[in-house]
Amino acid sequence: MKNILIFGAGRSSVFLLTYLAERASKYHWHIKVVDAEESDLAKSLRLSFSILNVRDDFAREQEVSQADLVISMLPARLHKLVMQSCLKFSKSLFTASYESKEAQQVEEEVRSKGLLFLNECGLDPGLDHMSAMRVINQIKQEGHRLEAFESFTGGLVAPESDDNPWHYKFSWNPRNVVLAGQGGPAKFIQKGKVKYIPYNRLFRRTELIKINEYGWFEGYANRDSMSYIDKYGLQEVPTVFRGTLRRPGFCKAWNVFVQLGATSDEHYIDNVEDMTYREFINSFLYYHPADTIDLKLYHSMQIPMDSEIIPKLEWLGIFEKKKIGLKRATPAQVMEKLLSEKWQLMPDDKDMIVMWHKFEYLNRDTKEKVEKNSSLVVVGESGRRTAMAKTVGLPLAVAAKLFLTDRLKQSGVLIPTQPYIYEPILNELERFGIKFDEMEKTSCLIEK
Amino acid sequence: MKNILIFGAGRSSVFLLTYLAERASKYHWHIKVVDAEESDLAKSLRLSFSILNVRDDFAREQEVSQADLVISMLPARLHKLVMQSCLKFSKSLFTASYESKEAQQVEEEVRSKGLLFLNECGLDPGLDHMSAMRVINQIKQEGHRLEAFESFTGGLVAPESDDNPWHYKFSWNPRNVVLAGQGGPAKFIQKGKVKYIPYNRLFRRTELIKINEYGWFEGYANRDSMSYIDKYGLQEVPTVFRGTLRRPGFCKAWNVFVQLGATSDEHYIDNVEDMTYREFINSFLYYHPADTIDLKLYHSMQIPMDSEIIPKLEWLGIFEKKKIGLKRATPAQVMEKLLSEKWQLMPDDKDMIVMWHKFEYLNRDTKEKVEKNSSLVVVGESGRRTAMAKTVGLPLAVAAKLFLTDRLKQSGVLIPTQPYIYEPILNELERFGIKFDEMEKTSCLIEK
Repeated sequence: MKNILIFGAGRSSVFLLTYLAERASKYHWHIKVVDAEESDLAKSLRLSFSILNVRDDFAREQEVSQADLVISMLPARLHKLVMQSCLKFSKSLFTASYESKEAQQVEEEVRSKGLLFLNECGLDPGLDHMSAMRVINQIKQEGHRLEAFESFTGGLVAPESDDNPWHYKFSWNPRNVVLAGQGGPAKFIQKGKVKYIPYNRLFRRTELIKINEYGWFEGYANRDSMSYIDKYGLQEVPTVFRGTLRRPGFCKAWNVFVQLGATSDEHYIDNVEDMTYREFINSFLYYHPADTIDLKLYHSMQIPMDSEIIPKLEWLGIFEKKKIGLKRATPAQVMEKLLSEKWQLMPDDKDMIVMWHKFEYLNRDTKEKVEKNSSLVVVGESGRRTAMAKTVGLPLAVAAKLFLTDRLKQSGVLIPTQPYIYEPILNELERFGIKFDEMEKTSCLIEK
Repeated sequence: MKNILIFGAGRSSVFLLTYLAERASKYHWHIKVVDAEESDLAKSLRLSFSILNVRDDFAREQEVSQADLVISMLPARLHKLVMQSCLKFSKSLFTASYESKEAQQVEEEVRSKGLLFLNECGLDPGLDHMSAMRVINQIKQEGHRLEAFESFTGGLVAPESDDNPWHYKFSWNPRNVVLAGQGGPAKFIQKGKVKYIPYNRLFRRTELIKINEYGWFEGYANRDSMSYIDKYGLQEVPTVFRGTLRRPGFCKAWNVFVQLGATSDEHYIDNVEDMTYREFINSFLYYHPADTIDLKLYHSMQIPMDSEIIPKLEWLGIFEKKKIGLKRATPAQVMEKLLSEKWQLMPDDKDMIVMWHKFEYLNRDTKEKVEKNSSLVVVGESGRRTAMAKTVGLPLAVAAKLFLTDRLKQSGVLIPTQPYIYEPILNELERFGIKFDEMEKTSCLIEK
């Protein structure tokens, strides 16, 4: 009997818990789930469950001490506590979050204790590493020269549930969407030169991408492309770019809020308690004795009256005389409040995650330029069983199975960029409809 | 005999020291100047001088303990040390810097010891308070209703020394000019509504202002207009706006650097040591296999080829293949390096400071709207004897004289917003050519 301890039974754990629960008797697993709140999910899967405050050292350590593997689905900032207990009781720990500095610092200790701390084993980070490294390693093994790597991911709404002019709904943390791109310029490398895009131009420097039958998307740059050079061993590759996908037109309309200053989290809005959304928008616009607020916005942003931006803004209700209903808020918090209602994924809605990689390489033999693409589209089952939860949870679940069945014997602090980790995970995920499409075309076919 | 102790003998102290030195024998003052470096200025004025590290508590306290009045011309962050010593030895302290929180916190102690800590007694802050409050108090005394207060100040280059297309040279800290407007939106109140302008739009929302024979200027919003509501007692006034003056066209061209991200102080530029200015600019631009960097910049910023922005940018040399020559730098530091050379005020150059207030009020009797203006233009004598040093130093010098001749008997932590302080200062400054022009026009003359 092996004990699996899972921190966090929120919505993003649904596929993870289901996968493990369905295999528990076959593999002789005992699954213990803990969360700060009651969990219908754990109950419906008949899993052993306790309410636990992760900051309660005694309770946390008691649970960890009995586990053979610990999986944390908690918000990233709480992993540290779990990690400390895992070190104390010599337990391996898996997460879908970015590898923290703290994790890197204990690498030595983790390795000497023969443990595996596997991080970045969800969607992004997670499946992005696995699917990209599979192609990168293949290109390298065949002796070709990789000249460009671009990678985009987006959590969107499925076409069948797409009923708003933004073609977007939340399947992930709304706050992160409002703050996306803030805190420093996007940085990447293009044709050997480091490039910077400041926040105020981020949503205007987009790239159009077509992904087979799903049609067109647009991508804007992520802040951190440079860190992938070391992660993926791309030191010789002159172009490395990572971005986020939206449906075309989203970024240009979102940019209106960026330009207004309405996404700022740096200052509080005066007297927000008495304010309507209309007044909120007006606080960023010049005074005019006669013009309406919508006209002032369109004029100051140079938006023509036939622009597709206008129905998007109108649909959000930013010009409505509706109270915001917050006592104290930054502009970003006002936007989060508005958008959380408007872009809410309803119980019957399906979300969609999209991942798209582009690899350009010089064929060793023919000296031709080749463009290779790898893409993934996963549509959710419902507003509860989202594609987001599936693609975050299943890679972690499969990794857990591999570990508990002794097919993942490495120790250390790792992310899934090595074939021995990603191959079995990617292979098994295909059975769940998580399958990357790869295609290739030589340069004569590339229209520039 | 009264002892005056002055911290700081840099360029901005020239008029302060000269004024005091010329009156020392008449009033029986002994003037002691201390600075971290040797001072030709103190020597030429035959003032008693010591090299002193202001962080050396013993040395600092020894000097302060012997003074009757302490004046600090040090960078604002160092005033705290001087203030502590002044409190310890019960000495009054005058500065031209913003009143710090620390100063406000010791108000009680200052008052109980019968001391006067007078801050904000230079140009801006300083003359702006005095000249604005003189008019505001006059309007209030006459029973009119003040409806708007706008105030602009600029440190510029005099027309006779204006030989570059930006019509600008540094008479003040270059770093502050590069970072102007960063760190939060400009905030002001217009027709009773609080308005925000984010950094990325700050230099496009300018106001054109004509100041008698000196011609046209443009003003962009300062970050902190709101704090003047309490400072000036303007709680009932629906429009309060403060800004900074440049020559027309400056802001639009400067905005190119803002939009590029070239004024950011938030991140370091990769490999700046090997970079030219041309490469620096290119790091913010998209890759193109054929277009030149200048063309890419003009294209991405939508600058037409006949725009007046182009000669400004070319003149700065941003497209030159000249090494930057910094080992490690943020974009803002690169810009500071470039501009410090290009916008340097040469020994023969004259600077110019410009201050302009606008007051709109409703005449109590006629019910007419009246616009009143108060403006000041001071042209420097040379690159050493600048208008900036004159307008920063002389208000402080006159205040010191008033204090030492017992005509400033109040105690507490004050700024010069009360008639008993500003009237004698403004009156005496007129003899030095620092004279505000006031004019008034009723609304029928105001073209809208």
